[in-house]
Amino acid sequence: MRILSLIKNILEKEERFLITSHIRPDGDSIGTQLALGIMLHKMGKKVTILNEDTVPKCYSFLPHSDWIKSSLNNGNQFDAAIILDCSEWERLGKIAPIAQTADVIINIDHHADSHGLGKYNYIDPSAAAVAEQAYHLLKHMKQPLTYELALCLYTGILTDTGSFKHGNTTVTSHHIVSEFLKGGVKPDFVYRMIHERNSFPSMLLQGMLLSSLQLSNDGHVAWTSITKEMLKKVGYTVEFEPESVLSMMRSIEGIDVALLFRDLGEDKIKVNFRSKSEVNVCQIAQKFNGGGHKQAAGCVITGNLEMVQEMVLQNIMEMLNYY
Amino acid sequence: MRILSLIKNILEKEERFLITSHIRPDGDSIGTQLALGIMLHKMGKKVTILNEDTVPKCYSFLPHSDWIKSSLNNGNQFDAAIILDCSEWERLGKIAPIAQTADVIINIDHHADSHGLGKYNYIDPSAAAVAEQAYHLLKHMKQPLTYELALCLYTGILTDTGSFKHGNTTVTSHHIVSEFLKGGVKPDFVYRMIHERNSFPSMLLQGMLLSSLQLSNDGHVAWTSITKEMLKKVGYTVEFEPESVLSMMRSIEGIDVALLFRDLGEDKIKVNFRSKSEVNVCQIAQKFNGGGHKQAAGCVITGNLEMVQEMVLQNIMEMLNYY
Repeated sequence: MRILSLIKNILEKEERFLITSHIRPDGDSIGTQLALGIMLHKMGKKVTILNEDTVPKCYSFLPHSDWIKSSLNNGNQFDAAIILDCSEWERLGKIAPIAQTADVIINIDHHADSHGLGKYNYIDPSAAAVAEQAYHLLKHMKQPLTYELALCLYTGILTDTGSFKHGNTTVTSHHIVSEFLKGGVKPDFVYRMIHERNSFPSMLLQGMLLSSLQLSNDGHVAWTSITKEMLKKVGYTVEFEPESVLSMMRSIEGIDVALLFRDLGEDKIKVNFRSKSEVNVCQIAQKFNGGGHKQAAGCVITGNLEMVQEMVLQNIMEMLNYY
Repeated sequence: MRILSLIKNILEKEERFLITSHIRPDGDSIGTQLALGIMLHKMGKKVTILNEDTVPKCYSFLPHSDWIKSSLNNGNQFDAAIILDCSEWERLGKIAPIAQTADVIINIDHHADSHGLGKYNYIDPSAAAVAEQAYHLLKHMKQPLTYELALCLYTGILTDTGSFKHGNTTVTSHHIVSEFLKGGVKPDFVYRMIHERNSFPSMLLQGMLLSSLQLSNDGHVAWTSITKEMLKKVGYTVEFEPESVLSMMRSIEGIDVALLFRDLGEDKIKVNFRSKSEVNVCQIAQKFNGGGHKQAAGCVITGNLEMVQEMVLQNIMEMLNYY
């Protein structure tokens, strides 16, 4: 592929690299940033990895995760910026203007709607994760697949495919992952690090959310709410990741839409939407100035919990009747 | 491999086959039974698939799952019995004496402690699932990998590796699975069929269990109980699969042992044990006339819920102090 050769030339030629990715970075963006950072570092390059947000605790086991910073100490100058897993400047947050100062911009992305943010755009919507694209780049550059690199890129594919269960998982994904296992990656270790370090209070909160789950009369919509009382019970400082509860709600037979309401205080209610069917939840979130994807979206609405619940549910019911 | 040639000869030569597997069959045993059944059927053979227990609802989407019976209409005579995923006669339940009447017994198994139940034993503890072994047999027999076969065998590997996250997942597992995806298997469809058809009451019950979760003072043991009151609330007929709650309990940081107590009525308490560390929970279950594996075991104890909880927890605490 011609773009791989072009990127290879830049990585070999330039000296000072900025690597960045989208706000609220996930396993794919973090794993791939670290892998490219480690590779460039081994090639003797100067590497800065910079994101708007810090590394979530569950990914702190990745080698050199401390290389990822959320601010620049001093105004560095970069020969090249590598933007990963991101197809819009806005999604880089405060890093966007820094990345734009680089002489050359490389964009590696697997989003279907991506047109490329840089001069050199390696876009492949058939890739399950940017980690897969980084693997192809690594191979093209004839760089050895060390354990550290394999671990970072495995984490990318594992998380973006939902442990190889999402529809984006391909023949190639499994082939590439088998190379990572050859490179010494232990699947149970990685899974334990990412998914089995939950706190006891967060588990209690999940229990409260599921035991107060509600279902619409037609069985197509399920919802639950994080109330102030719940947070008081489990301690306000609980780290809560809504993904697990939302995916359990989605696992109910017959469900089209799963909703999580969270009372943020000061009359602000955060709503997370998940769709299991053709229902486009992004359209609903957009009505309330939110956004997201067809199957996963969110918004923040002003009002009290009961009022917001009623309003959102009514909108969803109208939409379901339309389908 | 010589054993593959020997089995190939028998499958080609004999006419009437019994295929069976262990009690409470799982995705691996059911998927592999169906795959071999479909293959033999295509070869023009007479195939009977027989298990002590019926097919769990979540696997009913597999092609020809209705071929699996739990009783014989009349006393069939079998040229050969194929025993899958099973290394002890007792684990075949009431099917054991029927299988023993076959002229030839073939045992395909991946358990480490397996010595083989038959004349022809294809034992491979390095295989993540018997489905992997069935794949090798299929290839050796030069049988085409149809979509139906790929779907059945994919289900076997998916379930026995816990969606490719358990330590048994290997380079070969991923290679074989990539062949199944080539054969048309859609990962998201299979996952939805197996894991996303839960009932609303079972989800409420999970919520109740997690919200009443208890943790030992040292943080190493977590437990919860299915009480009669809970079952009354959600309706007694709720189908409940303890695996999901137990794996969520295991996901708490610092946990060594997760326990689920279930009041069966009539002073019988069922206990499920899961270990996340070196603690051998089978040893504890055996103390109460139960059994299982090092990391997953169970038993039924006579007594009331509080008494049984206290007794079991005391035993676990003693064991933990020993480690």
